[in-house]
Amino acid sequence: MADRGFAPSALLTDFYELTMMQGYFLKRYNPHTVFELFFRRAPFGGGFTVFAGLQPLLEAIAALRFSPEDLAFLEAQGSFRREFLDYLEGFRFTGTVYAMEEGTIAFPNEPLLRVHAPLIEAQLIESLALCIVNFQTLIATKAARIWLASEEGTVLEFGLRRAHGINGALAASRAAFIGGASATSNALAGKAFDIPVKGTMAHSWIMAFESELSAFEKYAEVYPDGCILLIDTYDTLRSGLENAVAVGRRLKAGGHGGFGVRLDSGDLEYLSKKVRRRLDAEGLTDALIAASNELDEEIIHQLITQKAPIDIWGVGTHLVTAKGDAALTGVYKLAAKEVGGRIQPTIKVSNNPDKISDPGIKQVHRFYNGSGSPVADLLTLDSEQLAPGGAHRFFHPRYPYSYTDVTDYGRIEALLAPRMIEGRIAAEFPPLRRLQERARANLRSLDATYKRILNPHVYKVSLSQALRDLKYRLIADYERGLAKP
Amino acid sequence: MADRGFAPSALLTDFYELTMMQGYFLKRYNPHTVFELFFRRAPFGGGFTVFAGLQPLLEAIAALRFSPEDLAFLEAQGSFRREFLDYLEGFRFTGTVYAMEEGTIAFPNEPLLRVHAPLIEAQLIESLALCIVNFQTLIATKAARIWLASEEGTVLEFGLRRAHGINGALAASRAAFIGGASATSNALAGKAFDIPVKGTMAHSWIMAFESELSAFEKYAEVYPDGCILLIDTYDTLRSGLENAVAVGRRLKAGGHGGFGVRLDSGDLEYLSKKVRRRLDAEGLTDALIAASNELDEEIIHQLITQKAPIDIWGVGTHLVTAKGDAALTGVYKLAAKEVGGRIQPTIKVSNNPDKISDPGIKQVHRFYNGSGSPVADLLTLDSEQLAPGGAHRFFHPRYPYSYTDVTDYGRIEALLAPRMIEGRIAAEFPPLRRLQERARANLRSLDATYKRILNPHVYKVSLSQALRDLKYRLIADYERGLAKP
Repeated sequence: MADRGFAPSALLTDFYELTMMQGYFLKRYNPHTVFELFFRRAPFGGGFTVFAGLQPLLEAIAALRFSPEDLAFLEAQGSFRREFLDYLEGFRFTGTVYAMEEGTIAFPNEPLLRVHAPLIEAQLIESLALCIVNFQTLIATKAARIWLASEEGTVLEFGLRRAHGINGALAASRAAFIGGASATSNALAGKAFDIPVKGTMAHSWIMAFESELSAFEKYAEVYPDGCILLIDTYDTLRSGLENAVAVGRRLKAGGHGGFGVRLDSGDLEYLSKKVRRRLDAEGLTDALIAASNELDEEIIHQLITQKAPIDIWGVGTHLVTAKGDAALTGVYKLAAKEVGGRIQPTIKVSNNPDKISDPGIKQVHRFYNGSGSPVADLLTLDSEQLAPGGAHRFFHPRYPYSYTDVTDYGRIEALLAPRMIEGRIAAEFPPLRRLQERARANLRSLDATYKRILNPHVYKVSLSQALRDLKYRLIADYERGLAKP
Repeated sequence: MADRGFAPSALLTDFYELTMMQGYFLKRYNPHTVFELFFRRAPFGGGFTVFAGLQPLLEAIAALRFSPEDLAFLEAQGSFRREFLDYLEGFRFTGTVYAMEEGTIAFPNEPLLRVHAPLIEAQLIESLALCIVNFQTLIATKAARIWLASEEGTVLEFGLRRAHGINGALAASRAAFIGGASATSNALAGKAFDIPVKGTMAHSWIMAFESELSAFEKYAEVYPDGCILLIDTYDTLRSGLENAVAVGRRLKAGGHGGFGVRLDSGDLEYLSKKVRRRLDAEGLTDALIAASNELDEEIIHQLITQKAPIDIWGVGTHLVTAKGDAALTGVYKLAAKEVGGRIQPTIKVSNNPDKISDPGIKQVHRFYNGSGSPVADLLTLDSEQLAPGGAHRFFHPRYPYSYTDVTDYGRIEALLAPRMIEGRIAAEFPPLRRLQERARANLRSLDATYKRILNPHVYKVSLSQALRDLKYRLIADYERGLAKP
């Protein structure tokens, strides 16, 4: 657990969750509630996200405890009563969590997960759920964009040194692998999550020896197979490449494979083409060219378009810090609560129409066409049964009068299923590579127009008639309440 | 330790550090070396950074061990020999680390820390040092910019839900406090680092009750003092403000203090002014107004300029994700190595002149004027003794012919001192609030022109004559070597 960076302390929460919890507790007010976690906008100006973070979240929730030190800390704050601290001492999460599977593509305003729990418990896990799901989904999405830009190439995640703290790095390695990276440089992430680890040499290796050639030779003696030499320490073409060619020829003559060079500065298109020609001229036609240095999906897309002969993409900073959108703006909103023994939908009305929530307990239905490509998603009330076959009415999420009838579809899939039941994890988690396979399959099935790096086609997420009717009825009720004298 | 998010596993490193270490080990090549950690550009287009991360780094280094599981993981990779794994089993870091004190302002190209250690040991801690120092310095700097923009106001760090993983959040809370935040929302960070924790209520509190007024009343019953009510759940001015005023008047009549409201959406200038007038009209002149919602230093600066009557700034996402520069681009470069029993300076020559390193073991001297304000920094060789008084020649870091003689100064301070000696932490670490005080004093002493949010004055970091001469001699040596047939 510690290796994975998911601290089990129940104090890992915003302080206001604790003050609110005490408030509910002292008021003896703890109705059953349903909270939903969703985001309002896909990051990076993109057309999709890749959901990630479920396993670490559920493991953390299942392990949530207040230790004696945690309770002593809270007591020292001076604002908590003894009876509440006693309650926290025995705290266990007993709720049920519905969620998508990790590696599933998701879109704005869709519940990624739904928490059914007594109010006090549901409140405690808000910050934890947002922290884990926001970040892992963000990075899995970034990795997917990079992997798509590389035309499903070999992407290595190299971000440890620029990541947001040690375990920010670990979480990033996990999510990047789900989203499409082939391996990580972070050895601990490799161990904790069973991700392949990769890496060869830094500039310091070359500088530590008397000459570049001698440094290359010594490395090749220790690692004759899979020997990737970093050629830009001094002068890429005049020095690094020539020394690498000498070593590469010797390795090839000795029957060793996997030789290559890495470019870490300069113009990668120009250099990779020069390097490729020189390697080929020396008979090193199977030598690999790896490239790194501030890469992101836009630069990779451009290099691919220009046919730069790069075989391996090392991506660090901009993958693990999610260049362009440092946070997924996921939120956790009350969707329903128990009133007089019955579950009633709730709505957050706001001066800003974009911030008015969709009320009630919801399900996400994905409609696929005959070839298995998603065509649109329909948010419904969880109580609705979608009849297979026949037309389904898709209402615009913002304009109550606007709708389309969808008739031409194949399969319908409900994406939310129980993953934790009454505080217990419902099923074994698949290995991480299975999540990567799911993400890749999901991404491949998605029409290319939704995957454009810039200005993608907007995937439709609509409301069912029942949900749309409920939403506008609750808004009207609220406005009538305000208008009362 | 686990609470603080600094995993002690020695596997927390880039894999290539391990492959290089084995290379050095098998080649029986382990000279004494000196590495320096520095960055080339201040983040956010700003004029300064606030150094942070030293204590967690040194604590992690002192605790570095390879566990039996770590070694089993490495063995399973198939590329490590038994004798090297045996060496790792007994690994301890035995080097000496010089560094600035946390909370010190620092500038591009200055060594923040210097590692003196056998090559194999110095190599292992590269990724760890960069991960911790890059991130904590980045966030401390962001917090300082926000604190300055707020005119030294009350800034609360609210970032847990948008931070980069759980312990990315913890590290961010620590660094934000050093840089100027008054408190954090993250309860575990409060406990781990002794940071004040703050927080009141979320929208869910209001939505959980039958009405906004009733939710406010119940909260005030539990927390009559320091009761900050969130007023934008439904309609800020028509509903939230009026309900808050009713509760605030009752609390005031009851003799309770610290009442206030929080705005979390809408136009903060417009709303804060409206709210202030209404509160004042109701006699609630000491009621506080807190504001949150996607704040950063530029928005705060603008609100301050427009005299928005905001007392407390809640800053989350853009503080902990370092909006505008998601990473400090610190690097760790070999500055010197032992050759034939003597320490020799090394240089990294590059096709890119900005990436040519300053060679040798260096010290940072800060020159202050008579009123204690820093005027310029001079990088020297560590062996140089700066005579106090008299002129000092400051050479331009890029143009060898350009210099200024600095005569008008008061004190000179050497910023790097030993903080770890032969693997042992050299002195007790001060409490975090002392680091915050140092940062604030440093920032106050800095001339305002260097603190502008946009386009600040460039603080001068120059080379001593000895360092400048060494640099250009080594470049010439290198070029001669290349030119040889």
